Amino acid sequence: MNYETPLFFRVMEYANAADRDVIDMVSGNPDWDPPAALREGLREYADLEPDRFQYPPSEGVLELREEIAARRGVDPEQVVVTNGGGEANYLAMARALERDSGTEILLTDPVYPYYPGKTTMLGGTQTFVGTSADGQLDPSAVRDAASAETAAIVVNTPNNPTGAVYPEGTMRELVAVAEAHDALLISDEVYDHYDLSNRFASALTVDSDHRIVTNAFSKSMAVTGLRVGYAIFPPDLVEAAKSRHMLVNVATTRPGQYAVLNALRETPTEYYERNRRRLRERVVTFTDALDASGAEYTSPNGSFYVLARFDGFPGTLENVMRLIDDAGVAGMPGEAFGESKTAWVRFALVTPRVEEAAARLTEYFE
Amino acid sequence: MNYETPLFFRVMEYANAADRDVIDMVSGNPDWDPPAALREGLREYADLEPDRFQYPPSEGVLELREEIAARRGVDPEQVVVTNGGGEANYLAMARALERDSGTEILLTDPVYPYYPGKTTMLGGTQTFVGTSADGQLDPSAVRDAASAETAAIVVNTPNNPTGAVYPEGTMRELVAVAEAHDALLISDEVYDHYDLSNRFASALTVDSDHRIVTNAFSKSMAVTGLRVGYAIFPPDLVEAAKSRHMLVNVATTRPGQYAVLNALRETPTEYYERNRRRLRERVVTFTDALDASGAEYTSPNGSFYVLARFDGFPGTLENVMRLIDDAGVAGMPGEAFGESKTAWVRFALVTPRVEEAAARLTEYFE
Repeated sequence: MNYETPLFFRVMEYANAADRDVIDMVSGNPDWDPPAALREGLREYADLEPDRFQYPPSEGVLELREEIAARRGVDPEQVVVTNGGGEANYLAMARALERDSGTEILLTDPVYPYYPGKTTMLGGTQTFVGTSADGQLDPSAVRDAASAETAAIVVNTPNNPTGAVYPEGTMRELVAVAEAHDALLISDEVYDHYDLSNRFASALTVDSDHRIVTNAFSKSMAVTGLRVGYAIFPPDLVEAAKSRHMLVNVATTRPGQYAVLNALRETPTEYYERNRRRLRERVVTFTDALDASGAEYTSPNGSFYVLARFDGFPGTLENVMRLIDDAGVAGMPGEAFGESKTAWVRFALVTPRVEEAAARLTEYFE
Repeated sequence: MNYETPLFFRVMEYANAADRDVIDMVSGNPDWDPPAALREGLREYADLEPDRFQYPPSEGVLELREEIAARRGVDPEQVVVTNGGGEANYLAMARALERDSGTEILLTDPVYPYYPGKTTMLGGTQTFVGTSADGQLDPSAVRDAASAETAAIVVNTPNNPTGAVYPEGTMRELVAVAEAHDALLISDEVYDHYDLSNRFASALTVDSDHRIVTNAFSKSMAVTGLRVGYAIFPPDLVEAAKSRHMLVNVATTRPGQYAVLNALRETPTEYYERNRRRLRERVVTFTDALDASGAEYTSPNGSFYVLARFDGFPGTLENVMRLIDDAGVAGMPGEAFGESKTAWVRFALVTPRVEEAAARLTEYFE
């Protein structure tokens, strides 16, 4: 079996190997500092007794699960601490496909490319539901696409790549569609700390046994390399998910869990506010420059991304490589995110050089 | 689908919840110190620039892959850095089952219980090949069991739970059986640093496109909670394994990779020798005491474990709980490792209280 491997690492490698200065706007790696308490947690961990270097509980360190559960208003038993959001989504989708309630996964178009890749790997099939120009998902379109064959509906809010934030009404209706077909709504909320609209609504606001919420500290704490995330399962689905987690990974890295727990407890809200402020400023800077260049673009309500369309320059891998070599700006080809965005290029605003990148693009497309 | 979840964590929880002092000999968690350079690596990592907290390459940090490859005599391209030995075995078994070359996995009896659990999870079937009283595997028995349906042969040397170390001739013949049926030999060598016999032979000594070697730093560096391991694939199988790794976990924790790399470079061989010496002494202490108690036992050539059989006291979960409550010694039920060891209890010699544990057992069975 061959899976479609997401292109992120390939484009990053190409950009790193370029013969010139390239501004990296490929992947959602924050360029700002992790919380001081996260660094401090790693330092503290390094000096712990030997037994603290051994297996944590498979489902996660209890204090961390309790801290997550308290913040999310769920029972700690529902929480599995995972190797980042990646494993959280993998466990959620595996659970959906193993319930003997369909083999189809409903995804959005555009889509975060790991979801279709995971679907194929897990033996499921993908059906894509289009979104509006501003990235909103119409629940009635999802209702029309859903059937007895639907195992799960996977959404991402705030959304990568569109920047859309789904309102509570959408989340409520998506859960209802899942319930109507004995499917699961899987809501990937990894950008929840980067809601720029104050309209973000977690799927947890809708009480149901038919929704799984996934998340991670990768973006909120600027530590995509730490690999600590979590999934919140309905009580009757969590045991099987814990089994798969144990059989695949045994457990999630313990120094990472220790550091995240320390950061959750000790980080002032100002840390998160500052990061949102910075992101807001970058959105304005980048989109103002795109205005000047005459490009069409999306203005995100959340997450890190701006999609831009340049006249006569479709979002192919080839064109993205050309932008790297000739303009010195690395983005992601829109075609990586699905049919609807083949004309677009995605730029991640996680570099202090956003203004310079925009100037380079303006000059290149002049 | 329900998988058989290995019992380790359940028994550990029972032991931890006991109302009395219990000597923990359940799981293979070393009780000795990690290398000083590993702790130092974590401290150094805590002070790195923000970009070092972001995604490492999915297949692992290049310098770590190069260091592993140099030590194992393979191409760095063949190395995937995994979330511990657990993920390494998962990737290896998934690869074997997805080659359209059979759905059966040949395992030994007794067996490390994660292997049959992973097999079921991955949609394969298990066939068990018995081993001799001292844990040796007769390659001709494997040859007799193998067929066109065989996707993989999974072995563990030095062995958990028997302590057997397979000689080079065995490894060579196992690879030949795999080749004869277009199957893969998967050799889990996580206890390679605890060969007490000097007869350990890695499957890497046999050049073949039909073998995968898995390993981890969990045991050799006494860091089962760090979750850094690796798998070495034949060149034509590695790309698909990297894809699955990316789709399941995205990447392996970066501070862990940094710390392991530092420890690989800076740790004197005396560290590993000291740990082997300690283990050898514990084997003598424990088995001498078992002699006194009249129990039958295995004397390991490698790994951490002694299997003991007490008259009229089969190795059930119930009896193991009784030993926890009444003798204050926690082991693993032999029945967890397969049909052939239902009469036995496994004790992990990873506590400084080995002598005391043996005395408690002697007293209990008097």
